[in-house]
Amino acid sequence: MVTEIKYIEKPELNNPVLIEGLPGIGNVGRIAISYLIDKLNAKKFAELYSPYFFPLVIVNPNSEISGLKIEFYYYKGKRDLIFLIGDSQPVEYVGYYRVCKKILELCEEFNVKEIITVGGFGIGIEKQKPRVLGALINLDDMKKYKEAGVYFGKENPIGTIYGVSGLLLALAKEKNMRGCSMLGETIGYPIITDPKAAEEVIKVLMKLFDLKVDLTDLNESIKQLEDFLKSIEEKTKHLSQQLQPKAEGYYDYIG
Amino acid sequence: MVTEIKYIEKPELNNPVLIEGLPGIGNVGRIAISYLIDKLNAKKFAELYSPYFFPLVIVNPNSEISGLKIEFYYYKGKRDLIFLIGDSQPVEYVGYYRVCKKILELCEEFNVKEIITVGGFGIGIEKQKPRVLGALINLDDMKKYKEAGVYFGKENPIGTIYGVSGLLLALAKEKNMRGCSMLGETIGYPIITDPKAAEEVIKVLMKLFDLKVDLTDLNESIKQLEDFLKSIEEKTKHLSQQLQPKAEGYYDYIG
Amino acid sequence: MVTEIKYIEKPELNNPVLIEGLPGIGNVGRIAISYLIDKLNAKKFAELYSPYFFPLVIVNPNSEISGLKIEFYYYKGKRDLIFLIGDSQPVEYVGYYRVCKKILELCEEFNVKEIITVGGFGIGIEKQKPRVLGALINLDDMKKYKEAGVYFGKENPIGTIYGVSGLLLALAKEKNMRGCSMLGETIGYPIITDPKAAEEVIKVLMKLFDLKVDLTDLNESIKQLEDFLKSIEEKTKHLSQQLQPKAEGYYDYIG
Amino acid sequence: MVTEIKYIEKPELNNPVLIEGLPGIGNVGRIAISYLIDKLNAKKFAELYSPYFFPLVIVNPNSEISGLKIEFYYYKGKRDLIFLIGDSQPVEYVGYYRVCKKILELCEEFNVKEIITVGGFGIGIEKQKPRVLGALINLDDMKKYKEAGVYFGKENPIGTIYGVSGLLLALAKEKNMRGCSMLGETIGYPIITDPKAAEEVIKVLMKLFDLKVDLTDLNESIKQLEDFLKSIEEKTKHLSQQLQPKAEGYYDYIG
Repeated sequence: MVTEIKYIEKPELNNPVLIEGLPGIGNVGRIAISYLIDKLNAKKFAELYSPYFFPLVIVNPNSEISGLKIEFYYYKGKRDLIFLIGDSQPVEYVGYYRVCKKILELCEEFNVKEIITVGGFGIGIEKQKPRVLGALINLDDMKKYKEAGVYFGKENPIGTIYGVSGLLLALAKEKNMRGCSMLGETIGYPIITDPKAAEEVIKVLMKLFDLKVDLTDLNESIKQLEDFLKSIEEKTKHLSQQLQPKAEGYYDYIG
Repeated sequence: MVTEIKYIEKPELNNPVLIEGLPGIGNVGRIAISYLIDKLNAKKFAELYSPYFFPLVIVNPNSEISGLKIEFYYYKGKRDLIFLIGDSQPVEYVGYYRVCKKILELCEEFNVKEIITVGGFGIGIEKQKPRVLGALINLDDMKKYKEAGVYFGKENPIGTIYGVSGLLLALAKEKNMRGCSMLGETIGYPIITDPKAAEEVIKVLMKLFDLKVDLTDLNESIKQLEDFLKSIEEKTKHLSQQLQPKAEGYYDYIG
Repeated sequence: MVTEIKYIEKPELNNPVLIEGLPGIGNVGRIAISYLIDKLNAKKFAELYSPYFFPLVIVNPNSEISGLKIEFYYYKGKRDLIFLIGDSQPVEYVGYYRVCKKILELCEEFNVKEIITVGGFGIGIEKQKPRVLGALINLDDMKKYKEAGVYFGKENPIGTIYGVSGLLLALAKEKNMRGCSMLGETIGYPIITDPKAAEEVIKVLMKLFDLKVDLTDLNESIKQLEDFLKSIEEKTKHLSQQLQPKAEGYYDYIG
Repeated sequence: MVTEIKYIEKPELNNPVLIEGLPGIGNVGRIAISYLIDKLNAKKFAELYSPYFFPLVIVNPNSEISGLKIEFYYYKGKRDLIFLIGDSQPVEYVGYYRVCKKILELCEEFNVKEIITVGGFGIGIEKQKPRVLGALINLDDMKKYKEAGVYFGKENPIGTIYGVSGLLLALAKEKNMRGCSMLGETIGYPIITDPKAAEEVIKVLMKLFDLKVDLTDLNESIKQLEDFLKSIEEKTKHLSQQLQPKAEGYYDYIG
């Protein structure tokens, strides 16, 4: 089994921008992009499968299973958009490269020239109005993103961006694509979902692409996600204890 | 060396169901399926070898070695069955995918359309009568499994299923197969073999496939397994100390 | 770069036995086989290179470097022998398979039908006269090895054999080869080189293959090895601290 | 994506020597070679990309991203030189082999017959005048390097050289190339950048290749690097917490 994309349909898109929101610090990207998909009624058109996800299956509350994957949605607006969300970052260092490379193949297929990656940036404190920090493939784009509300300080506090949000831009740069990483400031505990940081990122994207999105449901939506995440976390505690086999304490043989 | 299946014979099977029982929480799957194989006198017809098992060999009490592998047995009854047991889960995340993919190739070979995976679900307490919790590829099958005794609550307590029991269903779903994971409730310490949970799973399978199996030997059988597992565990403690080489404390050079 | 064998020469050998002695518990195999190579004046004819060794180079006392590898020596006697020694076990689970598979390719090249693997078996205590415990591919060979001094108890205390000594036999069994693992009882601390266990193994091999080897130098030889191993260990302590890069505390960027 | 080299130009070089300086103990190699590149005005002609670097992107102070890579510079002098620097050692054991093999392909392309690797050797104490310890592929070269100031003691204190500095020489030896590893004595804490050790290495290289380099800026240059490294380190602390996904505490699912 290799990393592969399965298409549900191949929509006609005009110069689309890909916007990535996988789980990460504060779940900022995952929340923001999920909310946009929901409110804009974006349509799923492709799924990415890979052996570089955890070897597990998710069981939904209705007892139906679903495997880990990345999903692609499209939205046709003033500017066509492709949203990317998923249940998990890849596993293993090489897995990040395999998955990002495959995402870039989809970009090529749809002639994507610009990528936005969304995440959180841990600052250790809670801010009333978190900023959206930016990092660019090409500095010529700074003005555009600045006007939409992205902050580029004199000395960028971001040192490195780890995971798909960072690597996807690095590999896009090699292909002469353009792009921006938008990181909402958040307290930085991975387990705490941060609605305020997500809201700030959504506002930037609304301005950038002239999107009309009602934000009143965001807090309620996040509340539900938090409850769900918490319950998943408790459930998986049982499962995860020592399940990954180890040579130490090898006790599974039955003659 | 790649992951591969070696056939002892290729039996004629009519619309068989594959039932998986590898080691895991409470060893529920391993015990239940081993017992069924024994009592139904199922016949081994194939073995799966893989570089994604521990690099070790098991030494049987009679001093004969045997390598880690997964074994396939068939049983011809009202419904033909393929049983899958083994000594170990795979190692490394990618190993789970390689092994599960190879199992699905065997399924294709025998036209298997339905997979049942058996395991334990840790609940932290001991129950007098553990339930068998279910998770389905396709909700249309719920009635059938419910009638055989599988529990599907309003809010499924299973959050995720880790390992071959989970991933095999996830990959089977992509191939439009049907299937169910049956997890016997157990206290959830991997080292404690749970006969009661295994018994409940066996009863479900007996009802589902109209199997006649004498359960009176189960406790005795499990008692022996426990003794054996405990002795293996003690023996491997010696072997496992620092045997996996590490760059730290590299001391093996002899000029 | 792949795992490969480079031949210095291809000697004519008559039905040779391969005898493996890589580093491991008590360094029993490494010491015993190195000593035999030295005293029998066995001749190196091949080297195995692999990306599944540590990414490091050894610096000899004379300042010359030498990379990690496995070496093959041959000895023509009443029974032709191929000795296998090396500086290190492989790294990563899959690495063991790649290396063992390559060793078996050499076996095929020289028509080797029998493999002996030598190691230590940790028993937690020091014995005046350690036994040499055995495990067999095929029980028909028990008499032969027993007569040479290998111990096969009623209940073999060996539960599993980890590493090349174990896996090589497991994979040889799949190819219908014969073979025996000989594990000298030793206290079981990897860092302590055990001359007595090595001596007992050498005696078994002398008897088995009618070898004339003067054992008087063994203690002196081991003394030197121990000093050398200890000095290597101290030196590598400096090198190994945090050298394997980690994402945590990533501090290596220079603009 | 595979490990690959992208050429900016292919300069005409006459019997060049490759000199490697990746991050490591005391950052000796990275500092020394960066300084030489800067002062000799060496010109970048190639970049090496690999999936065996961390899956992250570096954000420069001006908010521009840059992916992890290894860079090659050339300098035409009395002896033509190729300098190799980079942001990071590879990840995963196999990654070291893939990257070193690719570097050797570049060497073949430019007919490089000699490789020098530069690093630090931790001695646990701070010395007023650190020595530059050497290790050689071929002892015939000892005189040449000794005259340039490299120390080869009676009993080389270097036991092993871990990482690209070591493995590159090991693999070069297999190709019958010549070469030397030069390790400046340093206290050995990876986080402490050691200007004195770097200076001693630079002096050796100046003498060896008759280079004119003004050393007065070295301390200032290192001071800036240290500040930068420290700030990067603090920034990445936020990012690195639990970002690498783990099955334990899997909490990222959003329904």
